[in-house]
Amino acid sequence: MSATNSNAQSAAQSIDAHNLSFAPKPPTFTSKAEEREWLKFRLAQAFRIFGHLGYNEGVAGHITVRDPIQPDCFWVNPFGLHFSLIQPSDLLLVDVGPTGTYNSDSQAAILQNHGLLVATNTIEATVFFYIALERACQAQLLADAAAGGRGGRPLRIPDEEALKTSKTNGNMTAGWFQGLPEFQFLEAREGVTFAFNKGKDAKGDLKPSN
Amino acid sequence: MSATNSNAQSAAQSIDAHNLSFAPKPPTFTSKAEEREWLKFRLAQAFRIFGHLGYNEGVAGHITVRDPIQPDCFWVNPFGLHFSLIQPSDLLLVDVGPTGTYNSDSQAAILQNHGLLVATNTIEATVFFYIALERACQAQLLADAAAGGRGGRPLRIPDEEALKTSKTNGNMTAGWFQGLPEFQFLEAREGVTFAFNKGKDAKGDLKPSN
Amino acid sequence: MSATNSNAQSAAQSIDAHNLSFAPKPPTFTSKAEEREWLKFRLAQAFRIFGHLGYNEGVAGHITVRDPIQPDCFWVNPFGLHFSLIQPSDLLLVDVGPTGTYNSDSQAAILQNHGLLVATNTIEATVFFYIALERACQAQLLADAAAGGRGGRPLRIPDEEALKTSKTNGNMTAGWFQGLPEFQFLEAREGVTFAFNKGKDAKGDLKPSN
Amino acid sequence: MSATNSNAQSAAQSIDAHNLSFAPKPPTFTSKAEEREWLKFRLAQAFRIFGHLGYNEGVAGHITVRDPIQPDCFWVNPFGLHFSLIQPSDLLLVDVGPTGTYNSDSQAAILQNHGLLVATNTIEATVFFYIALERACQAQLLADAAAGGRGGRPLRIPDEEALKTSKTNGNMTAGWFQGLPEFQFLEAREGVTFAFNKGKDAKGDLKPSN
Repeated sequence: MSATNSNAQSAAQSIDAHNLSFAPKPPTFTSKAEEREWLKFRLAQAFRIFGHLGYNEGVAGHITVRDPIQPDCFWVNPFGLHFSLIQPSDLLLVDVGPTGTYNSDSQAAILQNHGLLVATNTIEATVFFYIALERACQAQLLADAAAGGRGGRPLRIPDEEALKTSKTNGNMTAGWFQGLPEFQFLEAREGVTFAFNKGKDAKGDLKPSN
Repeated sequence: MSATNSNAQSAAQSIDAHNLSFAPKPPTFTSKAEEREWLKFRLAQAFRIFGHLGYNEGVAGHITVRDPIQPDCFWVNPFGLHFSLIQPSDLLLVDVGPTGTYNSDSQAAILQNHGLLVATNTIEATVFFYIALERACQAQLLADAAAGGRGGRPLRIPDEEALKTSKTNGNMTAGWFQGLPEFQFLEAREGVTFAFNKGKDAKGDLKPSN
Repeated sequence: MSATNSNAQSAAQSIDAHNLSFAPKPPTFTSKAEEREWLKFRLAQAFRIFGHLGYNEGVAGHITVRDPIQPDCFWVNPFGLHFSLIQPSDLLLVDVGPTGTYNSDSQAAILQNHGLLVATNTIEATVFFYIALERACQAQLLADAAAGGRGGRPLRIPDEEALKTSKTNGNMTAGWFQGLPEFQFLEAREGVTFAFNKGKDAKGDLKPSN
Repeated sequence: MSATNSNAQSAAQSIDAHNLSFAPKPPTFTSKAEEREWLKFRLAQAFRIFGHLGYNEGVAGHITVRDPIQPDCFWVNPFGLHFSLIQPSDLLLVDVGPTGTYNSDSQAAILQNHGLLVATNTIEATVFFYIALERACQAQLLADAAAGGRGGRPLRIPDEEALKTSKTNGNMTAGWFQGLPEFQFLEAREGVTFAFNKGKDAKGDLKPSN
C-alpha cells in the first residue's frame, strides 16, 4: 500500500502512464442562452468554493466570466455579498468594452501589496490555478523561513524542470481538468447540479448553504 | 475568467469604477428602545462571528457597544461565557462613566504582551478591522520570517501608499460596509435576522448554534 | 465599539474591575459515587474537546484524573480509541500506586522530543492550560522566526511581568474558571450535560458526535 | 489531572506500562473475494480520511493496495474524482506487472519538488505514517525557522533515540494500530462499517458525505 501526494506534474504523467481515454469533456449547449445560464451557475459555484476555502475578505475580490452573448460584457459578483452566499441570480453583467478584456494566454501574477491574479479560459481552470498559487505562496514562505533557520537558502527548482512542469500542467486543459474535483465536492455538499436544457425560466439558485 | 483576492483598497476602487449608487445604508429606528435592541442583537452576533473564527481564549476578550439610552454605559459580554453561545439577553450593561469612553476616531493598536485593540463607531467596522488586523499580523509574521530566510528584509509598503489606503479604507464607512458580509454569512448559517419594530418583549435570542 | 483579544491577565483584571460576585463554583456531590461519575463524565468531555481541536495523534496522548474512592487509582483513556469518540464507560481505572501521583502544585512542561505536559487539580484547568500552552508554543515559534527575519531577537517578557501574570492566572482557580467555556461550547454542540443525583445506573454516554 | 500529547514512542511504551493483552487483531476473511471487498472498502475510507484532512490537490495523489486475487494488480483511485467522494465501486484495478510493486520493508520518502511517499503492508499503517510524516514536515519547517530567529540551529534528535523510536514505532504493527483511530472516527461520522460475510453483491458504497 502506498500513498503519495504529488504535484500536478505527476497527475499529467499519470494520464500518460494509464493511457486513459475516458477523460471528461467540457459541456456543450443547445443555445447561447443555455451557455450563459451554465456560466452563471458555474461562476456562482466558484464563489461558494472560494468562500468554503476562506478566501473571502470583507468585500474585496472578484471572479469574472465573459458573457457568451455580449462578448464585451462580463458577469461579476455583486459588491458586498459574502462569497459563500452568491447564487446565479445575484451576478451582475458589466460592460467593460473591448480594452477591458484579458488576452488568451493563461496568466498568473502576484500583485505587490494587493493579492493574487489568475486569468484563464475556463472558470474551472481559474479556480484550480488560484488555489494552487495560494498554496504555492504559503509553501514558499515556509520554505524560505526554514531555509534561513538552517543557515542556507531555499533551493530553486531548476529552470528546465519548471518549464517542463509549466508546459504539462500550466496549459488550459490541465487546469480545467484539475479544477473539476472542487466542483464535484461542492455539488456533493449542496446536492445541486446544473440542469441542462432546463429552460430559461430556471435560475439554478440554491438556498444559502452553511 | 479571472480571480483576484485583493486588499480593501481595490474594494473601494471598485466602487468608483462601477459607479455604484445602491450601497446599503445603516438601519434607522422608530425608538431608542428599538435601537438598543438592535445593538444588543448585533453585538451578540459579533461574538458568535468571533467564536466561529476561533478568537475565543478562555474567558478573555471583550467587544463593547455604547448604550443609546444611557450614553455613559456600555453593553459587554458576561465574564466566562463562550463567544459562540452569547445571545442578546446574556449581555450586561456596565456604567464606565464619562472618562471610560473612546474618542471618535478609528483606532487600532497591538498591545505588547496583551493582544489586539480596535475601536470604531459601529459594531460592523469593529468586526471587520479586528479580522483584518489579525490577518495582517499573521501575514507580517510570515513575511518577516521568509525575508530572513532569503537573506533580506521585508519590503515596507511606501508611506504614501499606506496613507492613501488608510484614507480610502480606514474610514468608518468603509469599515462598516466591509463588515457586513460576515453578518450576512452568520445569518445564513443561523437562519435568524433582526425583526425591526418587533416590539420590546422580543429578545432575539437563538438557541446555541454549532 | 471596541474589541480586544487579550491574555488571561486581563481576564483576571476584568473580574476586579467589574467587582463581580457571581463567579460560579465547582459542583458539590451527594456521594463519592456521584463524584466519580461526574469526574468520568467530565474526563470524557475533555477528550472530545481535544479531539475537536485536532490534538489526537494516532494512539498517543492521555488525560488522567484521580479516582475519589480509590486515591491511588486514576481514570485514563483506553489505548487506541479516537479522542472524539470517548465516553465515560470507555474509561479505564488503573492503579499507579502512591509514587505515581503528581504533587499538588500546578505544573506545565515541554518535554523535548516528546510533547506537552500539564498537571493541575481539576480537569477544567488541565484543559485550559494545555490549550493555552499549545497556543503559546505556536505563537513563540512564529515570533522567533519573524524576529530573525527582521535581524533581531524576540523580546522577552520581563521577569516581573511574567511572574505577576503567573500569580494571577497560573493558579488553579483561574485555570478552572478559564476552562469552563470549552465545556459550555461542547455541551451546546452535543446537547448533553451531566445529570446530578441521577443515580448510579446512568452512564452519561452519548452517541459518537461529528 | 494531567494531559500529555506525546509522540508515538510513548504510545508503545504505554502498551508495555499497562501490560495490555487486549490489542485488536486485523480481520480475517472467509474467502479471497471477501478480502478483496474489505480492501476496497478500506481503501475508499482512506481516501475519504485524506479528503477530510484536506490532502486533496486537483487530481494529484494516489493510495494503492495490492489485489489479493491478482497479486500483480493494484486498486487505485480513478483519475479526477475528489478524495472525499471515493467509494469502493469507484476504484480501478490496474495491472502494473511484477516490477511495479514495492518491496516489503516500510518506506517513507520526501520526493524533492514532488511530495511525500509512504509504503507499508496495510492501508491503516499507510494512512498513519502519511499523516505523521506530513505533521513532522510542518513541525520541522516551523522549528527550523524559529531556530534561525534565535540565532541558533534546530537541535537534532540523537541518532540513538531516533533509531530506538523507529524500531518501536516504525514497524508495521505499530503503524497499523496507530492508524485505526482515524478509521473509527470516519465510521462514527459516516455511520457505516464493513459488513463481513455480507455476500458479493453488496458494494459497501455510501452516499457522498460532507
